[in-house]
Amino acid sequence: MIGRLNHVAIAVPDLEAAAATYRDTLGARVSAPQAEPDHGVTVVFVELPNTKIELLHPLGDNSPIAGFLAKSPAGGIHHICYEVEDILAARDRLQAQGARVLGDGEPKIGAHGKPVLFLHPKDFCGSLIELEQV
Amino acid sequence: MIGRLNHVAIAVPDLEAAAATYRDTLGARVSAPQAEPDHGVTVVFVELPNTKIELLHPLGDNSPIAGFLAKSPAGGIHHICYEVEDILAARDRLQAQGARVLGDGEPKIGAHGKPVLFLHPKDFCGSLIELEQV
Repeated sequence: MIGRLNHVAIAVPDLEAAAATYRDTLGARVSAPQAEPDHGVTVVFVELPNTKIELLHPLGDNSPIAGFLAKSPAGGIHHICYEVEDILAARDRLQAQGARVLGDGEPKIGAHGKPVLFLHPKDFCGSLIELEQV
Repeated sequence: MIGRLNHVAIAVPDLEAAAATYRDTLGARVSAPQAEPDHGVTVVFVELPNTKIELLHPLGDNSPIAGFLAKSPAGGIHHICYEVEDILAARDRLQAQGARVLGDGEPKIGAHGKPVLFLHPKDFCGSLIELEQV
C-alpha cells in the first residue's frame, strides 16, 4: 500500500540556522523559507536526489509543532510521510486492522495541496506517520 | 555534499510486531530479520520505491539503541542516514565548520559493510545523522 517516502519532517527552533546547517555544513540544496499559514508552519525544503527533508518552524498561535518543540527545544524528527495512491482506501484498510487515524478520520488538504492523514504513533512503532495521496 | 537519503532507522521494542505493522497494516515489502551482532541490532528492512526504512531491535548486551528504547519504550525514529561519496572529505568539511562527529572521528564499517560516521544531534537540528560512504 505505502509507496515512496515523500519526506522526513524535522521541527527546528531556528529556521535560518537549520537552513544554514543543511546548506553550508551538509552541502545540500535548500529552498527559501515558505510560509504555510493554513498549516501553522514555515517550511524550508531540503532537496535530496531521492526525497525531501522538510525543516518546519512554528507559524502563528496554533502551530501543530509548537507542543513538540516545547518538549524538545533543540528540535527533532517530527514525522515521516509515505505516499499512497488512494487515501480513502488506505484509511479504510488501516481502520479495518484497528489502526488509529488522527482527528476525525477525514483527509485534509496538506501543505503540498494534496489530501493527507496522520496516523497514531502508538500504532506505528512510536513514530508519527503522514500519508499523502499522490 | 550529502546525496540520497539512504534510510530512516526506527528503534522498536518488538521486531516481529513492527514487521507485521509494516507488512500487513501498511502493505510494504519487508525482509526477514537479519542479526547484526557486530552492530548490536537485529534489523528488518522495509523496501520502499525510493529508500528504505530500517526497523532496529537491540541484540546483545551493548546495543547502541538500548538507551534510546529505555527512554522511549514504544520506540521511535532513531536516526536518518545520508549518503556521501567520500566520508573522510565529508568529516573534514564538517569538523572545519565546527560540527561534532561522534566517537573518535574515524569511520567505522557500518551494517551495510560500508564506512559510516555519526554526527552530534545538537549540531544537526536535534536529529542523529549517520553518513554512509557509497
